[in-house]
Amino acid sequence: MTISQTPLTKETITDFFADLQDRICRALEEADGTGTFREDAWQRPGGGGGRSRTMAGGTVIEKGGVGYSVVHGEATEATLRSLNLTEPAEFYATGVSIVIHPRNPMVPIIHMNVRYFEMSTGHNWFGGGIDLTPHYVVAEDARWFHQHLKTVCDRHDPAYHPKFKPWADDYFFIPHRQETRGIGGIFFDYLKPTSDTHKAELFAFVQDVGNAFAPIYTHFMHQNRDLPFGEREKNWQLLRRGRYVEFNLVWDRGTKFGLETNGRTESILMSMPPQANWIYDFRPEPGSPESQTLDHLKKGINWIHA
Amino acid sequence: MTISQTPLTKETITDFFADLQDRICRALEEADGTGTFREDAWQRPGGGGGRSRTMAGGTVIEKGGVGYSVVHGEATEATLRSLNLTEPAEFYATGVSIVIHPRNPMVPIIHMNVRYFEMSTGHNWFGGGIDLTPHYVVAEDARWFHQHLKTVCDRHDPAYHPKFKPWADDYFFIPHRQETRGIGGIFFDYLKPTSDTHKAELFAFVQDVGNAFAPIYTHFMHQNRDLPFGEREKNWQLLRRGRYVEFNLVWDRGTKFGLETNGRTESILMSMPPQANWIYDFRPEPGSPESQTLDHLKKGINWIHA
Repeated sequence: MTISQTPLTKETITDFFADLQDRICRALEEADGTGTFREDAWQRPGGGGGRSRTMAGGTVIEKGGVGYSVVHGEATEATLRSLNLTEPAEFYATGVSIVIHPRNPMVPIIHMNVRYFEMSTGHNWFGGGIDLTPHYVVAEDARWFHQHLKTVCDRHDPAYHPKFKPWADDYFFIPHRQETRGIGGIFFDYLKPTSDTHKAELFAFVQDVGNAFAPIYTHFMHQNRDLPFGEREKNWQLLRRGRYVEFNLVWDRGTKFGLETNGRTESILMSMPPQANWIYDFRPEPGSPESQTLDHLKKGINWIHA
Repeated sequence: MTISQTPLTKETITDFFADLQDRICRALEEADGTGTFREDAWQRPGGGGGRSRTMAGGTVIEKGGVGYSVVHGEATEATLRSLNLTEPAEFYATGVSIVIHPRNPMVPIIHMNVRYFEMSTGHNWFGGGIDLTPHYVVAEDARWFHQHLKTVCDRHDPAYHPKFKPWADDYFFIPHRQETRGIGGIFFDYLKPTSDTHKAELFAFVQDVGNAFAPIYTHFMHQNRDLPFGEREKNWQLLRRGRYVEFNLVWDRGTKFGLETNGRTESILMSMPPQANWIYDFRPEPGSPESQTLDHLKKGINWIHA
């Protein structure tokens, strides 16, 4: 990892995110084998735009989106208030956001986001996270996933993982179900640099998180793509996707903020599954793999040393 | 219609709703022919409870819920604030709530709610509404539906329909899609009695709205149940159900309030369809029946005189 000696500009960060989207899409296409991403470039009326890349009907990926955006303009009242600013100011936000819904229920759903936010007043911070939503929780896979993220975190600051792992448990939680969305991962926000050197360090961490996505997910794609499944597993996957929809539309702050502030709807809702089902008060048989999965959708599980 | 001479009690209103649920379930079962409702009685920890009745896999009704509830207890801070009350007080709320998702895309989705709210301070009001969400908008059916509701309204007050029809257009609207959920209907809230006689009149109106549900929906069940459809129509239905999910989870005040205040999740989410699909940026062919339907998902259409 190289720590640049000159102050980091928003252009450098933006360029990294644009390139990250390219590299992730290539890696996912290669791992899928047949699916390809379709690009939809868009402009934001208030300033900036993005490139939404979506795949549908791949061999492994049933529906997925990899979004990159760089938007700017007048900051909202809410943003100004949250920063105790009384005068109008401009914001600049850029990032990459991903959700992948696989065809095979034995391959987990994954989400990743890395982002940078800067105000014309000088305030700036990084945020992001990765979390995994297996339709069937497998302890060994969960351990591998969390260990991978811990290794990424520990390379930068031993204080990161103990803070960002529980933050993911808290963030990716569905209060009305009293369930976590999946097995969590890491989540972080408002990582504010205290110096140029610190900013370069934070950026190096965010780069590492972004770069971790493709190796992590292609690992699960390769490992689980040919695992057998039947109607029972497919039906369970569709119900779990229903929960994914519930989390994203009712609780996810990014989704809610986007939809309520006139964001680009199709790009925000790239996270929706191709299909989701609901059954009134469905309860899996006690002791079944489905029931065991529910037992693992709890905060505070230490998967690495489980 | 009989206007009672003695002051109306909450028990009388509650009994009406309980009976309304029974009668509607019987009418829907009869019209469906094979589907039956399964009852799930529940208690609310803070006071009261309900009976959720759900049907799945009927001949006409693929998934539907008819809920009745009567809940009471300490009013929330938000409720007290909205009434300018500074002291704790008790609330009492009762009502019937319905959403029906049909199997055949040519049969519309329907929603109905009638409710009564009373505070220990004496504040009390009625609310409710009926709205129709056809997967394919048919002008003649829309006209029939709106005419039926207008007739119900006009029997009670000629000022109702001109107010409650646009209120439904505004309420059943999906801002992030800039679409109405369906063709609307009527919506009303905070109908506050100014006297005992007025309260009896308001109740008579709410009774009429509740009683209108079964004739309206069984009309569409009978008329459209055997209309032919293929894969194309089924796929469109699944996408429209996705919009229904988006409205209910992102914008519907009742659903949001329920999920955020620890309501009974399964009863609140009885409104979810059996299956919903999402396709990135799906746009129907210009001039197609699907595209014509989108053209009709707008506020302010006068269906009766269209």
